[in-house]
Amino acid sequence: MAALRNVFHGERLLVKRENLAPYECDALPVYTTQALAVALAESEQDVVEALKLCKEFGIPLVSRGAGTGLSAGAKPIAGGLLLVTAPMKQILEIDQVAMTARVQPGAINQQLSIASAPHGLYYAPDPSSQIACSIGGNVAENAGGVHCLKYGVTVQNVLSVRLVSAAEENFGEVITLGSSCLSQPGFDLLALVHGSEGGLGVITEVTVKLTPVPEQTRTLMADFASVRQAADAVSAIVRAGVIPAALEMMDKLAISATEAFCKAGYNLDAAGILLIDLDGHPLEVEAELAIVERVLGESGAIAVHLASDDEQRAHWWKGRKSAFPAIGRLSPDYYCIDGTVPRHRIGDVLEATERFAEKYALRVANVFHAGDGNLHPIIMFDGREPDALERTEKLAADILEYCIEVGGTITGEHGVGVEKINQMAVQFSDAELAQFRAIKSALDPHNLLNPDKQIPTLARCQEYRALRSCCG
Amino acid sequence: MAALRNVFHGERLLVKRENLAPYECDALPVYTTQALAVALAESEQDVVEALKLCKEFGIPLVSRGAGTGLSAGAKPIAGGLLLVTAPMKQILEIDQVAMTARVQPGAINQQLSIASAPHGLYYAPDPSSQIACSIGGNVAENAGGVHCLKYGVTVQNVLSVRLVSAAEENFGEVITLGSSCLSQPGFDLLALVHGSEGGLGVITEVTVKLTPVPEQTRTLMADFASVRQAADAVSAIVRAGVIPAALEMMDKLAISATEAFCKAGYNLDAAGILLIDLDGHPLEVEAELAIVERVLGESGAIAVHLASDDEQRAHWWKGRKSAFPAIGRLSPDYYCIDGTVPRHRIGDVLEATERFAEKYALRVANVFHAGDGNLHPIIMFDGREPDALERTEKLAADILEYCIEVGGTITGEHGVGVEKINQMAVQFSDAELAQFRAIKSALDPHNLLNPDKQIPTLARCQEYRALRSCCG
Repeated sequence: MAALRNVFHGERLLVKRENLAPYECDALPVYTTQALAVALAESEQDVVEALKLCKEFGIPLVSRGAGTGLSAGAKPIAGGLLLVTAPMKQILEIDQVAMTARVQPGAINQQLSIASAPHGLYYAPDPSSQIACSIGGNVAENAGGVHCLKYGVTVQNVLSVRLVSAAEENFGEVITLGSSCLSQPGFDLLALVHGSEGGLGVITEVTVKLTPVPEQTRTLMADFASVRQAADAVSAIVRAGVIPAALEMMDKLAISATEAFCKAGYNLDAAGILLIDLDGHPLEVEAELAIVERVLGESGAIAVHLASDDEQRAHWWKGRKSAFPAIGRLSPDYYCIDGTVPRHRIGDVLEATERFAEKYALRVANVFHAGDGNLHPIIMFDGREPDALERTEKLAADILEYCIEVGGTITGEHGVGVEKINQMAVQFSDAELAQFRAIKSALDPHNLLNPDKQIPTLARCQEYRALRSCCG
Repeated sequence: MAALRNVFHGERLLVKRENLAPYECDALPVYTTQALAVALAESEQDVVEALKLCKEFGIPLVSRGAGTGLSAGAKPIAGGLLLVTAPMKQILEIDQVAMTARVQPGAINQQLSIASAPHGLYYAPDPSSQIACSIGGNVAENAGGVHCLKYGVTVQNVLSVRLVSAAEENFGEVITLGSSCLSQPGFDLLALVHGSEGGLGVITEVTVKLTPVPEQTRTLMADFASVRQAADAVSAIVRAGVIPAALEMMDKLAISATEAFCKAGYNLDAAGILLIDLDGHPLEVEAELAIVERVLGESGAIAVHLASDDEQRAHWWKGRKSAFPAIGRLSPDYYCIDGTVPRHRIGDVLEATERFAEKYALRVANVFHAGDGNLHPIIMFDGREPDALERTEKLAADILEYCIEVGGTITGEHGVGVEKINQMAVQFSDAELAQFRAIKSALDPHNLLNPDKQIPTLARCQEYRALRSCCG
């Protein structure tokens, strides 16, 4: 602690119980742990020193930005240091000719777009936490968002990162992964660090691509009499060669919750609606509108509405963005999951979810990134009922494992963290998990960085698989 | 050899000098080596057995598909086994609903598009070797191509691969990297294997995304009075929010060589021309045409031509595709390099290349993927002159190192292999190279797979850097 205090003076090192409390969890508060200490990093050198001290004293290090993660990946580890890079929030450079920005890891996602706006540019990936989440955290989770269908998730929008290495040969040294252009020789370490959840190094700087602000955005809303038809329309749009800027779906329960909450103007009789943004040059948008309207008609939409102006657009989107709190009002508790499936299997998963929900006597609302096949079933439950949480967890596991069965995965954009570590044993074979562990040992041989998250041990996998096969 | 013969019967194991000769090099024939033996794999089991035998007897294994690589990455290693997966060329499944195909690693790139055509689909990445190159090799090199600007390079078009692991814990086991949908939990091993040049496992199956065949493609050709203006127009088009299907550039020497070779209809007075494909629904294409024509005018194009029909389109593109042989006619020998730079630095690199070329009394023609910032300077030389090859190599090094200086990289799509291994010492610091070596040791601890290529040893780097600093 004395050694830490030499680096992190005064209030930059938190050790008292009451000061540690706000850092006990990330945005998934069912998992909480108190850190040994919380250190607020203000420079790359702080990060290097913290890592060296953690190695010297053999204590684990969890690094995090804003702590808005949804899988407990940014939760502290008992007896470990929580290194917070949120104070490193500067936007170091915006290059309007290169259409890039260089930022510290704690820079806030939305602030970057605001700062880029005078140049006619923005940062495309927009997680729903974008008002608070940090770019460094976005890289660690390979964050997605509503507009990632057309513009790609974080990994497709990052050119390079500076990283403090925890490997043996270059421990504590700062390395650059990636370059200022779209390719790099050698192994793709830049992609590897995306979604690595802080386990393969500590990020100290990120250079991102910026995207021209589209001249125009228009929004379509399509009502369907069945979720299956709505889901199939999603595939048909992409098959027609159009990649909308956003392509979101809501089911009946999500629609009614949202209407009751904020009167977004949704059709309460629809079994499912699609919200579709088309953006670009007005001529392009007009062309895409014609194509998508035709496809929606052919897919059996009972009505297709075109937002008349930006006010109506904003109104419809406000509904989508309020869906989580709206659903929260209908139920004492809710639990959001994050499976991803091939786009053409969305209908199957929605139907299966309904069957599973009946089995556990729970209700599930769906509001999600349909274009990406990234589902967010929201399980509504009452935590005061003695077995409600257990039923919820079982339902969540059933849904996720069905996602795997149809060729999907247990997470689209929220990460594995602590929350989904058991499902890793279902998603992957022992030989596949061994490959992950080989990477982890190579780049973090002392197992200092966010240990025991994301990649399960072999023993844990065998235990979970045994449990599943005996208890279903 | 006896053990190998137990697996690879008859003509599937080549050991005689005359049978090994055709496999001495890849498509960069300046580097040749005779393998100990060449084994033709027909199944995943063959691959597994070959790898196990190589470990048992401690001999290196180079795996390759069609051997069309351009950086000697698929060249054999003396005393090693060359494992050829070209016979594993089946297209196992085309799923028109999922818009995916599952293929063996030896499946030919163009054959996949031909087989998908009846479903209105194709495989988008189109390296210039697409008539011959294999999908497995495309993954190993993360191959690009003319149409990768809009549709992404190989890594953006592959969903999963099956890989025989060479790591310690799961040696010889088959693992799947990636999934059938667009995300995966855990570390991104799928991205990591792309561009790993056969050094991190042997690929036995690839599942790719297919893309809808666009309803229409139209082609613009724009003439410029300076390469700088042509280069700047490239950035302006992207800045206007349009991502063309292809955006290629040729300079004066490439134009005149091509015109002399096949009369493609290029303007011999232009200092540079851009060839631009716009594809999609006719309404979208029309909209993009209007935008791009305006941007080209504002960028100072002296003329903008729109191909009147598919015949004229094909004619213009035939010129582009014949540029290499056309330039080959003008010079006894030529050497093509593959630097990539941020798009807005293309003009700088072209001007610098001209200066460097003068210094070494050599001529350089340029024909390249301008939209990706991926340059292919073609150095023309006469190998019969005693110092011509040496001057050529020095010029190539100067150009590549200038690419690094402006934020670029030493390869866009051809890989490092043997050819560019020295430049890795310029591109990366020792700490960065250590990170690559840590990955290599983790996934190939016995250094069996394509050793001594792509990732240089520390000693080699120090030697090359010393050489450069003393001899320029």
